[in-house]
Amino acid sequence: MFTRSASLIFLNSVIFGAVAWAARSPAPPPLEVVAADLIGAALTSNDAYNELVELCDTIGHRITGSPALEAAIDWALAEMASDGLLVRGQPVDVNIWERGAESFAMISPLPRDLHVLGLGGTVATPPGGVAGEVVVADSFEHLASLDGDAVRDKIVLFDVPFTSYGETVQYRLKGPSAAAERGAKAMLLRSVTPESLTSPHTGTLRYADDAPKIPAAAVTIEDAAWMRRLQERGTPATVRLSLSGKFVDDGQSRNAIGEIRGRELPNEIVVLGCHIDSWDVGQGAQDDGGGCVAAMDAGRLIASLPTPPRRTVRVVLYTNEEMGLAGATTYAEAATQSDEVHVAAIESDTGMGHPAGFRVDVRNADDPAAAAAEKILQLAPIAALLSSLEADGLRPAFSGADIGPLVRDGALGLGVDHDTSGYWLIHHTEADTIEKIDPDNVRKTVAAMAVMAYGLAETL
Amino acid sequence: MFTRSASLIFLNSVIFGAVAWAARSPAPPPLEVVAADLIGAALTSNDAYNELVELCDTIGHRITGSPALEAAIDWALAEMASDGLLVRGQPVDVNIWERGAESFAMISPLPRDLHVLGLGGTVATPPGGVAGEVVVADSFEHLASLDGDAVRDKIVLFDVPFTSYGETVQYRLKGPSAAAERGAKAMLLRSVTPESLTSPHTGTLRYADDAPKIPAAAVTIEDAAWMRRLQERGTPATVRLSLSGKFVDDGQSRNAIGEIRGRELPNEIVVLGCHIDSWDVGQGAQDDGGGCVAAMDAGRLIASLPTPPRRTVRVVLYTNEEMGLAGATTYAEAATQSDEVHVAAIESDTGMGHPAGFRVDVRNADDPAAAAAEKILQLAPIAALLSSLEADGLRPAFSGADIGPLVRDGALGLGVDHDTSGYWLIHHTEADTIEKIDPDNVRKTVAAMAVMAYGLAETL
Repeated sequence: MFTRSASLIFLNSVIFGAVAWAARSPAPPPLEVVAADLIGAALTSNDAYNELVELCDTIGHRITGSPALEAAIDWALAEMASDGLLVRGQPVDVNIWERGAESFAMISPLPRDLHVLGLGGTVATPPGGVAGEVVVADSFEHLASLDGDAVRDKIVLFDVPFTSYGETVQYRLKGPSAAAERGAKAMLLRSVTPESLTSPHTGTLRYADDAPKIPAAAVTIEDAAWMRRLQERGTPATVRLSLSGKFVDDGQSRNAIGEIRGRELPNEIVVLGCHIDSWDVGQGAQDDGGGCVAAMDAGRLIASLPTPPRRTVRVVLYTNEEMGLAGATTYAEAATQSDEVHVAAIESDTGMGHPAGFRVDVRNADDPAAAAAEKILQLAPIAALLSSLEADGLRPAFSGADIGPLVRDGALGLGVDHDTSGYWLIHHTEADTIEKIDPDNVRKTVAAMAVMAYGLAETL
Repeated sequence: MFTRSASLIFLNSVIFGAVAWAARSPAPPPLEVVAADLIGAALTSNDAYNELVELCDTIGHRITGSPALEAAIDWALAEMASDGLLVRGQPVDVNIWERGAESFAMISPLPRDLHVLGLGGTVATPPGGVAGEVVVADSFEHLASLDGDAVRDKIVLFDVPFTSYGETVQYRLKGPSAAAERGAKAMLLRSVTPESLTSPHTGTLRYADDAPKIPAAAVTIEDAAWMRRLQERGTPATVRLSLSGKFVDDGQSRNAIGEIRGRELPNEIVVLGCHIDSWDVGQGAQDDGGGCVAAMDAGRLIASLPTPPRRTVRVVLYTNEEMGLAGATTYAEAATQSDEVHVAAIESDTGMGHPAGFRVDVRNADDPAAAAAEKILQLAPIAALLSSLEADGLRPAFSGADIGPLVRDGALGLGVDHDTSGYWLIHHTEADTIEKIDPDNVRKTVAAMAVMAYGLAETL
């Protein structure tokens, strides 16, 4: 396992220099020729999809702290090494939260065992659970407007319809403390999804420092609607919630890194990013197994070119995205302490629908919107190479959580712009499984990531 | 509770006669005027939907043998009585099967607890369950083509993609015995649905008399696909299935009947049918709570007319549809022993999507197709009254399971022709809950049933 140190940085610099010198001789073909080769290779290969099958079916979901996550990291490093990438695991200190036994039941008016998923990082309930009457809130504002006695010692249910993920997820992040501040003893969340077949969706919460930490869990759309109807009929539900998850001793994980050293500017980096951890349900197929195999396979294709690009292309499978972004933070901190310059970072972490192009994300600028518009003009010739895949779209938007710290530090951020129409239905649920993925969208994502990464590394 | 006997039949005839005489005086308005009134009343009322909320939220699912089913029947009789219908519960002898604890787990290659629903009527596994290797079969023909040793003492999984319900459900009905005949020790079924969010779908099986009875259960599309992939990789899954459902002592339930006596031909009957029992998961909202409240509310609207129709309109909430159709059989047998003539029977049992009209079903004819075509011509003027709702379609097809015995005996069968595009996803699952129902489709179904029943009872 790689440990960054002064001497290793020095050694790396020597290696970078040697690789750059050795590889400088053969001039690469024009960009459009290389792009056509990359696209042809991507679209005729099942390698990425087959890797995803292996990851999903034999390793499965992989939350921070699980043996499965470390097995997945070992597997990814081995795959990338066999594809000719220079690999290393970058150590990352992580907090580890473990889900325990969970249950949720309506006590009255109709006794029923119901589905539940504790939110990631929730405190446990007392043994035996917490029972009480449910108070349904439509919004933060609605909760704030309720009488104190109406909320105190009750169980608050945020029953907020899905608008966009970015908007609705605020209730998952901040809802527990908002309820606690009003004296609630637990918080329930209508799962963050537009549609449901009795599917609870987990995800992290963010406790405020100045509010009591209360147990918090996601319930299904169906049960949230039921509890709302009961309240509207004047017979509010009483329920019992039992959670036993907890933070255990901190531990260590790794970012799985594999790179193709740039032939002229090896210290200028283009990242191909994704996250290797997942939630502890389903297979983590679309979140973010698909992104990982696409990034890895894009790396494989670039590594197999006769001439590497001018800059370094680095595949980074970040760890701990779901439970704290420690992989992203660690990577970006190390980058600031190195002599590397991160030119751009591409991330695939919005499922595996059809990739329509890239979301372009510039933050470290006086006028980020103007800067993004300028970047879009600059990137258009590269994106145009993907027009046959209908993957040549460019629009200003958030790129990705893992590459966020690099983007804040000045890198150009690019998020693969997948069709998410089916994504939020399975996001963070048991139903995030591979049979919902069209292998053709994996191939197209590989092609888009490979062409964009090569184009940025060669020509930007 | 009503018990049919010779003397009661005589008494009923006397009452029928008196009601017919009393109601004969006021002539009804023309059909199109009555239809407009019925449609206007249906579309401006929330009564049916509110009844469905009450049924779903406070009584819930109601399998044969459950206290909830009898509570639902009492509730329906009381609702219909308060709406002015003449009500009775018709006793029905039923077999009672109770689901017990169930579990299903992959043992290898990746230990996982998985979702499962035993099929209705399945035998239990031995205590501790049955464990073994999974053999995936694509079809009955594929299973038959497999080597005997490849199936004997294995657990057969029928992984058959959904085409239509009528076609794919054959694997649920006949799959257990087909697997048993090849020596399998249990049968798993890919749930009968086009799409899934890890949702198992239950439903009855039909054991053949000459095959061993083996335990049988529905698994999710996701897990079926996983087990298939594992087999294709050469590492077939081993699993453990534990079911403890069993038939208990036989019991009695009731068909819930409410009627509006015909003013001229009270012994000629038009049935408004549906089934009041459901599976023991979800709320039985679309299967078939919606049909029940629509039939009941159509009856309420007809009962509230100043002049009842010439023939009797009879709302029949059949019992035991899911677990044996004993309600349907009992009702039809009693009908053959009475002096009643069942002119037509309308059923709503295909969910609560938009009603496009009616499926027209004639069976007791030399040329059923020609007879159905003739009936469609005859019904067209009544259906045309529903054109403003886009509910005026008529097509020859199966009408409904509960009215099936009446249709076989000569009644015209009409099935409310709902849009089923969302129905099979929730059919027989926990996700059959009311919040997925558009109240407007309930109102339109009420209107369609009321107009068609009145039209048949007044004019046919």
